[in-house]
Amino acid sequence: MEITRRELLKISAGAVVAGTVRRGSFAADDSLPSWNEGAAKKAILDFVHATTDRARPKFVPEPERIATFDQDGTLWVEHPLYSQVVYCFSRVPAVVKAKPELANQEPFKTVLSGNKEEIAKLPMDQLLKVLAATLTGMSVDTFEAEVKHWLDKARDPRWKRPYTELTYVPMVEVLGLLRANGYKSYIVTGGGQDFVRTYSEKVYGIPPEQVVGTAGGTSFGYDKQGKPFLTKDPKLLLNDNNAGKPEGIHMMIGRQPYAAFGNSTGDRQMLEYTKAGKGERLAMLLLHDDAEREYAYGPAQGLPDTKIGAFTQALYDEAKSNGWVVISMKNDWKRVLS
Amino acid sequence: MEITRRELLKISAGAVVAGTVRRGSFAADDSLPSWNEGAAKKAILDFVHATTDRARPKFVPEPERIATFDQDGTLWVEHPLYSQVVYCFSRVPAVVKAKPELANQEPFKTVLSGNKEEIAKLPMDQLLKVLAATLTGMSVDTFEAEVKHWLDKARDPRWKRPYTELTYVPMVEVLGLLRANGYKSYIVTGGGQDFVRTYSEKVYGIPPEQVVGTAGGTSFGYDKQGKPFLTKDPKLLLNDNNAGKPEGIHMMIGRQPYAAFGNSTGDRQMLEYTKAGKGERLAMLLLHDDAEREYAYGPAQGLPDTKIGAFTQALYDEAKSNGWVVISMKNDWKRVLS
Repeated sequence: MEITRRELLKISAGAVVAGTVRRGSFAADDSLPSWNEGAAKKAILDFVHATTDRARPKFVPEPERIATFDQDGTLWVEHPLYSQVVYCFSRVPAVVKAKPELANQEPFKTVLSGNKEEIAKLPMDQLLKVLAATLTGMSVDTFEAEVKHWLDKARDPRWKRPYTELTYVPMVEVLGLLRANGYKSYIVTGGGQDFVRTYSEKVYGIPPEQVVGTAGGTSFGYDKQGKPFLTKDPKLLLNDNNAGKPEGIHMMIGRQPYAAFGNSTGDRQMLEYTKAGKGERLAMLLLHDDAEREYAYGPAQGLPDTKIGAFTQALYDEAKSNGWVVISMKNDWKRVLS
Repeated sequence: MEITRRELLKISAGAVVAGTVRRGSFAADDSLPSWNEGAAKKAILDFVHATTDRARPKFVPEPERIATFDQDGTLWVEHPLYSQVVYCFSRVPAVVKAKPELANQEPFKTVLSGNKEEIAKLPMDQLLKVLAATLTGMSVDTFEAEVKHWLDKARDPRWKRPYTELTYVPMVEVLGLLRANGYKSYIVTGGGQDFVRTYSEKVYGIPPEQVVGTAGGTSFGYDKQGKPFLTKDPKLLLNDNNAGKPEGIHMMIGRQPYAAFGNSTGDRQMLEYTKAGKGERLAMLLLHDDAEREYAYGPAQGLPDTKIGAFTQALYDEAKSNGWVVISMKNDWKRVLS
């Protein structure tokens, strides 16, 4: 489903029928129904208005309208564990079944034990071994099928719902608003590019070619029947975190975004890169301060720190001094999940 | 200029006005005016018809309609030298001016001598030194400005025209036909991704994010004023030739193309990968057999071999046995250049 074109046609059709709606204009009051009135909502609407109205000095031609969104913690829930990490742990039994010698080797032994405290203590280099063993070594088609199968069955332990339902309704509205106004939206995630591509179109209306993520290489080869296929390699091509985000944006898009959305120190350079462009640029940071409806974490504003999605005081200070807009989940959103 | 949407709107508007043209249908007789009637033209029209008519069994939903085009020798002239190589040689004096110690070092000494015979003898590892010195080490903005400046001034020695005018009219018609029928076209080139992106939109209507090419990494950093920017690195991320083409397609697009166009052994794996997909797939190879209007080269059909764009007998045989369609520049095209 390529929503861009469909929505465009819908808008065009609407313009013909109603004779009132013009391409490039938007109904401000209805665009972001899950947002409370306030600085965050106003910043988004003002940005869209300024960049899509031909009569305004900051108008941006449609092909240049690029918006980038971090995923984990920005478009959907990342706490207490990235869903991709949950996926990787879930794959360990199958990996060990295929290679029984791993059963007595770390970190597989600990993961198989099911001891959550011990698993949580695994150092990064051991975690990376789990990721490499579960994300590489198979064909891209096999990987896609395995992820889709898991997504169908897996449930978040708190909400008892599929992970793909844990998207933030207000952010999905922003995606829709930008799309309806000629923006091409990209996910720019530290998560695996191939992992996110399996569901991005269905969940966000973002096609696979608009997903930039941490990516390993592939190797072209032939099966026994001589049919070509690609195998996922452990070789890392793009670590799409921190400085890797603007580097990945250049590699995959080749244009500087006009708007960027993130929630952690891993998004800092993407927001800086976006805001550094000429003309009107929008940089937004989502603050997880809603312990009731979602989670509250990050040392900014005295919230407890966590290993993931660090929203530090330094990041908060940079937002304030650089004109980035902080979104308070608690105050700016009428609802969080659908 | 994002032609896709404009043309779509044009077609939609036409449908309303004329009441006859339907989205997904096309006027076969007018679509490829520079093509002679024959197997090649018929293959293209049949493919578009089969994959875009909802009533037909091989119909392909619009978001999946991906077509990939090699550039050098497929979309524009590559003989006797890739224009990017001409660019790199042209940059050597400026590079040596900035680093005078290079003047007495190879391969720069030979390039500066202007001795064409000696330059032609430079081995590949020496050529790569020229490429690295002229394509990396500067900011992406500086590089883009330098390439655009060169493209404005440089002229092909045979036609005395800018390189960007040496596109094949019949192939530009194919791009337009596919675009008008909902296909998203990508350039998948062994040439430099950043190089081709500087002109792809203007020359082909293909935006930078739809250019996949040989790509080096970039490094994010800050200038003296604290403004972020990207520097082009010599580190190779994607060698977009041979097996690197399907690997690059997976990395950058994440979908298997339905149509692919090439002209040399460097395109073989891309054509194999495309043809291996389910449903209707089109793989086409351009044979340079027109010494009068362009060039004749490649050992297939007894033409003289050259170092670039090798269209070998083995490739020709594979085309015949795998159902790829060979385009004869001499016989299938009414005209070559505009």
